[in-house]
Amino acid sequence: MLIVQKYGGTSVAGTQRIKAVAARAVRCRREGNDVVVVVSAMAGETDRLIGEAMKINESPVERELDLLLSSGERISAALTSMAIHALGEKSISFTGRQVGIVTDSVHTKAKIEKISAERVKEAIAEGFIPVIAGFQGITEPASDVTTLGRGGSDLTAVAVAAALKADLCEIYTDVEGVYTADPNVVKTARKLDKISYDEMLELASLGAKVLQARSVEFAKKYSVPLVVRSSFNDAPGTLVVKEDSAMEEVVVSGVACDKNQTKITIQGVPDKPGIAAKLFKTVADNSVVVDMIVQNVSPDGKTADISFTVPKADTKRGVEIARSIAFELGAKNVATNENIAKVSVVGVGMRTHSGVAARMFETLSNHNINILMISTSEIKISCVIDMKYSELAVRELHEVFGLGGV
Amino acid sequence: MLIVQKYGGTSVAGTQRIKAVAARAVRCRREGNDVVVVVSAMAGETDRLIGEAMKINESPVERELDLLLSSGERISAALTSMAIHALGEKSISFTGRQVGIVTDSVHTKAKIEKISAERVKEAIAEGFIPVIAGFQGITEPASDVTTLGRGGSDLTAVAVAAALKADLCEIYTDVEGVYTADPNVVKTARKLDKISYDEMLELASLGAKVLQARSVEFAKKYSVPLVVRSSFNDAPGTLVVKEDSAMEEVVVSGVACDKNQTKITIQGVPDKPGIAAKLFKTVADNSVVVDMIVQNVSPDGKTADISFTVPKADTKRGVEIARSIAFELGAKNVATNENIAKVSVVGVGMRTHSGVAARMFETLSNHNINILMISTSEIKISCVIDMKYSELAVRELHEVFGLGGV
Repeated sequence: MLIVQKYGGTSVAGTQRIKAVAARAVRCRREGNDVVVVVSAMAGETDRLIGEAMKINESPVERELDLLLSSGERISAALTSMAIHALGEKSISFTGRQVGIVTDSVHTKAKIEKISAERVKEAIAEGFIPVIAGFQGITEPASDVTTLGRGGSDLTAVAVAAALKADLCEIYTDVEGVYTADPNVVKTARKLDKISYDEMLELASLGAKVLQARSVEFAKKYSVPLVVRSSFNDAPGTLVVKEDSAMEEVVVSGVACDKNQTKITIQGVPDKPGIAAKLFKTVADNSVVVDMIVQNVSPDGKTADISFTVPKADTKRGVEIARSIAFELGAKNVATNENIAKVSVVGVGMRTHSGVAARMFETLSNHNINILMISTSEIKISCVIDMKYSELAVRELHEVFGLGGV
Repeated sequence: MLIVQKYGGTSVAGTQRIKAVAARAVRCRREGNDVVVVVSAMAGETDRLIGEAMKINESPVERELDLLLSSGERISAALTSMAIHALGEKSISFTGRQVGIVTDSVHTKAKIEKISAERVKEAIAEGFIPVIAGFQGITEPASDVTTLGRGGSDLTAVAVAAALKADLCEIYTDVEGVYTADPNVVKTARKLDKISYDEMLELASLGAKVLQARSVEFAKKYSVPLVVRSSFNDAPGTLVVKEDSAMEEVVVSGVACDKNQTKITIQGVPDKPGIAAKLFKTVADNSVVVDMIVQNVSPDGKTADISFTVPKADTKRGVEIARSIAFELGAKNVATNENIAKVSVVGVGMRTHSGVAARMFETLSNHNINILMISTSEIKISCVIDMKYSELAVRELHEVFGLGGV
């Protein structure tokens, strides 16, 4: 088998952990597999570098931030390659550029445009264990360094796995897999043996943190089988694969909670067609990713409130855009709420089972939790609520949908 | 004027120092100059990274070591660029690759083969202050990252200055310039206002530490005027330029001491022609740089002892080579001495004044210091002595050659 193993920040935090990662890669190799390793920066390193940057310039140029942040993964890659070599296997490190990962030029959250992986293929053919610095690519033709956003090393791993037509992409982290809810919040949370790409996608984008959402999309698109598992033990982890009929029998697979969003509301917008389109085009042009959108028309029908959520890191930019649009439209005010949480229930079984939404709203209502925004897809229902109720809501939903297992 | 400013590790150690560097570059720019900045890794960072590598693999693959070490300068460059931007000037960082620094593939001590600096020229023309990550280049066509050896950022600065035909290359460090001797050893040491490339070259390669030897050679070859000065104050520093007639009047300009060498001796080599050639060809093929060489024929004329010195870091490799050659030649033994120091007096005036060597030997003899090896050039005399006498020797020579000033 050709296996791509991706190790996250806690898995490579320090020389002892890096040696353990090398040992696992070497073991897999000696079991007869071809192995490619993708590494993140050591845990805390990216935040440390961002902290240094902020001390120097509160609004650093993003191109420079990318050069800065890409260093963390390069360090991990070089050290991991040395560690594999110390165990007697041939190994060679590659940067994003050397793997041929070409991205657009949206610094700090670049999208992969193509990946050649030529040198990786050659290295495998020559018996090396290639170790790839995750999270990074370069632009063409300028050849500037870009990074792929938080969790971008997952994307590197999946993209490399797709380019190599790997049999499996293992995502090593500090948890044993994907759970029905955050085990820190819900004591009875269970590890899932298997989950569909679509469910994982909802859970990832909902803040389940074990896998970056874009990497799941990529894996689904190119049918790369994923396993999420721990680098600290040999537990089998959670397989993320195509949906099968058995999965549909389970109505709700998991409950997720995302506290990393800000709600921005433009109040008193004159209710004319095309306003929302204009607002969200401007937001998108600024590479701010909007998650939920709600528009309420006032009782007199003349003005509307438009609310949307953005990642907390984009709050400042989101508010600036909202203000400029509000001014242009003659809206009354822009309000911000950072104390929100988005709680979601996810499951492919929802496609065939009804009543999930009603049951969710009822559960929240039973505990006097006010719902601020709602959004739904075929396989999930999300409610934005006051952040202080988030743990309560997750626990109760987990219970109500019978996720606690036996 | 077009000025290249190179800042060493202590000059960029921490965010406060980086802000100070940015302020200096911006001031120079606002005085009407075009400014290019070259930065080293933060002080201690390179050693920290080497330490991490050694914990993982005591003989790391040098290609991986280069990827690891090159990260330090990239971090400094990104942060310095952000700091300049925070002061209101346009700035852009460049890696060695982006500057077009192509080297040979001798990892950890690569030689620059060519430098285009195209993007740097464009950036200057557009009003940017380019900030270049020192110490690094890439190979062609493999495009692997290389580093230029200890002090390699000096070389980056000089090479960039040459490529840009800069009017001046300022080397900022934590001392105010080049001294007649190490001020930590000799209380009466004086700062030199001016020194010739050749003298600086001898002093640099002799362990005066303020400037990397190869960068001085490069500066001489391309007539790049250098200034060595402190980034911690506005003292004028030492100008390193072409020799002029006034310089010849000073017999000895400085006394240097290098404790970073190991003496390796192959004892009892059958005295046949071609043996030294064979030995040093093998040494050179392994990219070990030999400094001094002495051959003593035994009284019976049948065997010889060949001694040579190598940088301490190359001791292991030097000894391995010596052993294999010794075995091949039927020599008796290989001995190593790490407790040596090379003390040297340097001055272009030696070309026209005689008796310097005699005076040096006499001074050492007067203090019962045994001379183990001697080497001379037109403008310097070096003696290898027991390390424990090195400070004494430097102080006495400084005194005898009247370097203490008024």
